[in-house]
Amino acid sequence: MHEFILYSRLGRTDSNWTNLRDAGRLDITVECAVAALFLSHAIRKDAVFHTILNGPPNPPLHLQINGETLHNIRTDQQTWTQILHKVLSGKLHPGISLSKMSFETLVKAKAKHSQIYVLEEGGRDIAQTEIGDKPLFVLGDHVGLPKNVERFALRYGTKISLGKQAYLAATCIAILNYILDRK
Amino acid sequence: MHEFILYSRLGRTDSNWTNLRDAGRLDITVECAVAALFLSHAIRKDAVFHTILNGPPNPPLHLQINGETLHNIRTDQQTWTQILHKVLSGKLHPGISLSKMSFETLVKAKAKHSQIYVLEEGGRDIAQTEIGDKPLFVLGDHVGLPKNVERFALRYGTKISLGKQAYLAATCIAILNYILDRK
Repeated sequence: MHEFILYSRLGRTDSNWTNLRDAGRLDITVECAVAALFLSHAIRKDAVFHTILNGPPNPPLHLQINGETLHNIRTDQQTWTQILHKVLSGKLHPGISLSKMSFETLVKAKAKHSQIYVLEEGGRDIAQTEIGDKPLFVLGDHVGLPKNVERFALRYGTKISLGKQAYLAATCIAILNYILDRK
Repeated sequence: MHEFILYSRLGRTDSNWTNLRDAGRLDITVECAVAALFLSHAIRKDAVFHTILNGPPNPPLHLQINGETLHNIRTDQQTWTQILHKVLSGKLHPGISLSKMSFETLVKAKAKHSQIYVLEEGGRDIAQTEIGDKPLFVLGDHVGLPKNVERFALRYGTKISLGKQAYLAATCIAILNYILDRK
């Protein structure tokens, strides 16, 4: 089992929006969820994707998407627009849960059972890092992790990087899944 | 320099559509283009993304996106919806060109200067493959490459795979870029 947490600075915490991009870049959240959970014609049953949405009007919200129980889903953004709309309106979708929870509370709870890795430029090269058997990877959105958030996460985890390039968040997740697949 | 060709079975060859998914899964084309060309806050100047669109009403069309000259672009699908609409209406965008050309003609022309690799399950593991210095990777969309198209490409190239998992096309491209970055 492995997990990802995306820290979304501005992701909307209601359903009063019409497109993902203008909803505080929820398009990035969707791209990351798809990279985390989808194979070709299959869902990764052993992966869990979390995001903490810190945008208006009701932050922070914890959105959790569990590969083991996720159903009625496709990879395209139209489908995800409908699903996020539904879930952020308080309705249910199989495999997705929403709760009032901060990044700090989530990381602290996860640290009891998982090994936490914080993706940052300048972190230790993942090729030189021993990855635990229950890893949880923390990533920022296009603006990166706020300094105080990164500091908090590093109390519980290790700073790693994927090398010299700075990748899009969804690309980082695709690469991390690949590295775990090849282990 | 490295290149990708996505063979799109059904991608629309006009601009009479309102969303990418319903335009013969042009959303997959966009996800692949973003994975091929974008770093975080930067464009890969040394990458070129091609797709051959084989959907109605005017197939085949060759859409080429050149990282070196691509401008006025973002990663989100709203932006790409507008750009593909524009280009498929015959208007211009910096770094993108459109022409009437088949997959076979493109592959044959590229084979003169590039090393061609066809991504398929059951191909030789990329970890055991020496990748040339001017690689071109051929991928299918969610349905995969048609048999006759694969056969044609293999006259000029080598069948490789990324391991035991079958990944989404955009994930394959993200992984390939990563493997090239780490070389």
